[in-house]
Amino acid sequence: MSENSSERPSSSESAEYFELLKFPTIGADPMHLRDCVQCAMWLKRWLEKIGADVELLLPEGSGLAPTPPVLYAERPGDEGAPTLLFYGHYDVQPPDPLEEWTTPPFEPTEKDGRIYCRGAQDDKGQFFSFLCGLREFLSEQKGSVPNNGERGTGNGERGMENGERGMENGERGISGSVPTIKFLLEGQEESGSDAIAKVAAKMKDRLRADVLLVCDTGAAADLQPAIIAGLRGVSHFTVRLTAATCDLHSGRYGGIAPNAAQGMAELMASLHNPDGSIAVRGFCDRVEPPTDEELAAAESAAMSDEAYRQEMGVAPVGGEKGLSVTARNSFRPTIEVNGIHSGYGGPGSKTVIPCAALAKLSMRLVPGQNPAECMALVERHLRQHTPPGMELFIEDLTGEAPAMRLALNSPMFRLAADVLGTLDPRGAVFQWDGASIPIVSTLARLSGAAPLLVGFGQGEDRIHSPNESFSWRQFMLCRRWAKELLHALSA
Amino acid sequence: MSENSSERPSSSESAEYFELLKFPTIGADPMHLRDCVQCAMWLKRWLEKIGADVELLLPEGSGLAPTPPVLYAERPGDEGAPTLLFYGHYDVQPPDPLEEWTTPPFEPTEKDGRIYCRGAQDDKGQFFSFLCGLREFLSEQKGSVPNNGERGTGNGERGMENGERGMENGERGISGSVPTIKFLLEGQEESGSDAIAKVAAKMKDRLRADVLLVCDTGAAADLQPAIIAGLRGVSHFTVRLTAATCDLHSGRYGGIAPNAAQGMAELMASLHNPDGSIAVRGFCDRVEPPTDEELAAAESAAMSDEAYRQEMGVAPVGGEKGLSVTARNSFRPTIEVNGIHSGYGGPGSKTVIPCAALAKLSMRLVPGQNPAECMALVERHLRQHTPPGMELFIEDLTGEAPAMRLALNSPMFRLAADVLGTLDPRGAVFQWDGASIPIVSTLARLSGAAPLLVGFGQGEDRIHSPNESFSWRQFMLCRRWAKELLHALSA
Repeated sequence: MSENSSERPSSSESAEYFELLKFPTIGADPMHLRDCVQCAMWLKRWLEKIGADVELLLPEGSGLAPTPPVLYAERPGDEGAPTLLFYGHYDVQPPDPLEEWTTPPFEPTEKDGRIYCRGAQDDKGQFFSFLCGLREFLSEQKGSVPNNGERGTGNGERGMENGERGMENGERGISGSVPTIKFLLEGQEESGSDAIAKVAAKMKDRLRADVLLVCDTGAAADLQPAIIAGLRGVSHFTVRLTAATCDLHSGRYGGIAPNAAQGMAELMASLHNPDGSIAVRGFCDRVEPPTDEELAAAESAAMSDEAYRQEMGVAPVGGEKGLSVTARNSFRPTIEVNGIHSGYGGPGSKTVIPCAALAKLSMRLVPGQNPAECMALVERHLRQHTPPGMELFIEDLTGEAPAMRLALNSPMFRLAADVLGTLDPRGAVFQWDGASIPIVSTLARLSGAAPLLVGFGQGEDRIHSPNESFSWRQFMLCRRWAKELLHALSA
Repeated sequence: MSENSSERPSSSESAEYFELLKFPTIGADPMHLRDCVQCAMWLKRWLEKIGADVELLLPEGSGLAPTPPVLYAERPGDEGAPTLLFYGHYDVQPPDPLEEWTTPPFEPTEKDGRIYCRGAQDDKGQFFSFLCGLREFLSEQKGSVPNNGERGTGNGERGMENGERGMENGERGISGSVPTIKFLLEGQEESGSDAIAKVAAKMKDRLRADVLLVCDTGAAADLQPAIIAGLRGVSHFTVRLTAATCDLHSGRYGGIAPNAAQGMAELMASLHNPDGSIAVRGFCDRVEPPTDEELAAAESAAMSDEAYRQEMGVAPVGGEKGLSVTARNSFRPTIEVNGIHSGYGGPGSKTVIPCAALAKLSMRLVPGQNPAECMALVERHLRQHTPPGMELFIEDLTGEAPAMRLALNSPMFRLAADVLGTLDPRGAVFQWDGASIPIVSTLARLSGAAPLLVGFGQGEDRIHSPNESFSWRQFMLCRRWAKELLHALSA
């Protein structure tokens, strides 16, 4: 299948994609551990068919803990060719709220060229379409690089049924240009990447690579290709406030009893100044601003306010006043309330003064900020602003991942931009994603590889929300990106 | 049974009390309508046994709406004697959270002289112990006022089995001193008193009375009797904020998407100044402060801060700075957040920017404040403070009841204080209850009667909370109060 043929994958490839989507791989939920293991086994077989040696790994000492396995695979290439490390995740977000799905969340359903399913995009759809392009690249190498071991590409459409393993490592050609490809696929990206962080730390040498490939990010407006030049860091934590021993009558005790709901509202409100900037003393002191070139590049790739408003139902008016949307989203840190819960929330009224309140928070960090230092500053702020009569608890701190920012003028980015220019006449833009993929910084450090994050997500895919979807157009674009990138890297 | 005998009611009386408690009369829940009707029927039979004519009433046009009936009863007394209107409510708060009850919420369980059951105090325990005292008073009148019709007092202990109806109205004595007693018992006090407000408005003439008796309030510390000289008014409402069309990824959109959880926190925080005073412009302008006499009387009856802290687990440090606990609780208005809910609240973290938030609020009002005007001021404030990019909705406004404050030097209060002085050597104190019984103002206005609110609640009864209870000591004190008050009113 070439990039100029049909705008959808072959029937056997789409059947494989649907098989992959049907595993309800909610990595955070121990009830779905079995599904995660079965999905990892399925991926193991798939990668073996394209000639990789595959291992399922668990961190030492995880024992009976319900940990979705990390899949590590290696497909040796030609000596002298570059080594690539491909990262993806097979776990997905929980599908709640279930009642908002118009089709079952783990039953891939095609409608108007889009596939609706949890994970259709994030990240199964993105990494699998990349793997399909990679498989096609390998199958095309078979003839042109005679000494390269073809170990079964398994593309049914092309009449090469899998199963027949090719030559063993020793038989491979000594010279040539097919890269060695290493794969790391994890099942806990949506819940902290705990296992892969532990596993990877123990296999630093085996992870050595030249390029770290990740296909888990977004394209620009109308699917214009985007190269991610930066990611924000992240930490999550829970804040609890307690006051009286039980909820109290709002009449009898109103005006004297400390109100935990009101106290939490005041505590959360205290985190920002009236102009929307972060009010935590020292939090932004070490923020490294973007260069003029970075800011200009980011602004040129930005979605228009009107396009944003149409997609989200509201204008992008959150955050700090006096800064552009791009500056706020790409180059400034945030402290976000992900949830707040206290007291009564049912129909009608209940006359209570809540005795406890809970808030879930996340911080997005930018280069220069140290996650532990930022958390210490936030904790000090929260303790200083805890209302009288209440006790503060800070719990469940996770993440603690720093931000990442890459130099725009690297050879890798030039090569990627050239390849993307052949796929889209508009060429590629650089983006500084406001989101975080904490494990990417870790893997970049361990492998010594240059991160190359190119993905084809769009806002309308609604990842993390009900009715997540991915279009065949996105799938095919991602597939072509993989194939052409590998050709370019083998040249 | 006299006030000097055993500290518990007779076995038949406690059996009646337990029967009454076993009806799960959650008036707000249509699933419990049948229980409410059965309870009202039980009360009807009970009141008929003491000689009252009883009707169960529903407001016109309520049709098939699940409305617990209002019970109206009248027991004619001697001509020239005063007319009393007794108000109580047989509905109770929902028992949630069920898992915090140590015994089943509708299975009265005696332990160390306390009865544990939803409604054990509020208001079944309080009004029923009053009715038991009233029944004893009537039985004692039988002999001393020969021409008064004894219509079956139904006190099994006293060997007067019910059923035998006495003389008809015409046969009653022309002169004498047994008061005419009217009863209004409702099943929606905990959910707005809608039906009784409608029913009472239509029967203004029949409700005419000299004294409006209510037994639904608290005593002072260590059960020292308290006469309620004031109640705060109340309004309840719900505030909703909406932002984007769905929850958004907190990384990808953090810093640009309006956050409804954060917006609600800021909106709720905006309602108060840093000193704890209400920040809504004009809200407190018409507040009528207490007289020096009222303030002094209220202060003298106040619980100590230390006693409060021991009971509630936290010092009374809520509300406005610079005012005493009593002043804040009795004579100042409040705006309380009864609940706030938005976004994620489960285990671990979820990287969302919530698109919607909900808050439940109540206002407690003091004399001088008009509920509709106060609500308009709050609404204006909330609209002015709604963060950019969010839409505000104000819903479910209920209550709208003004405050009540009674003159301390009334003859009725003097009489009540004298009676209470015979029950407790410490004498009675006056209290300005921070809570609200909206229907009391309405009934006072319709009946032309002087409200007399004396009850025997204590903080440890934990009304509205799991494991509500009422002690036999409270029950007997309330019973004696009823009997001695009626004797005094007949003198």
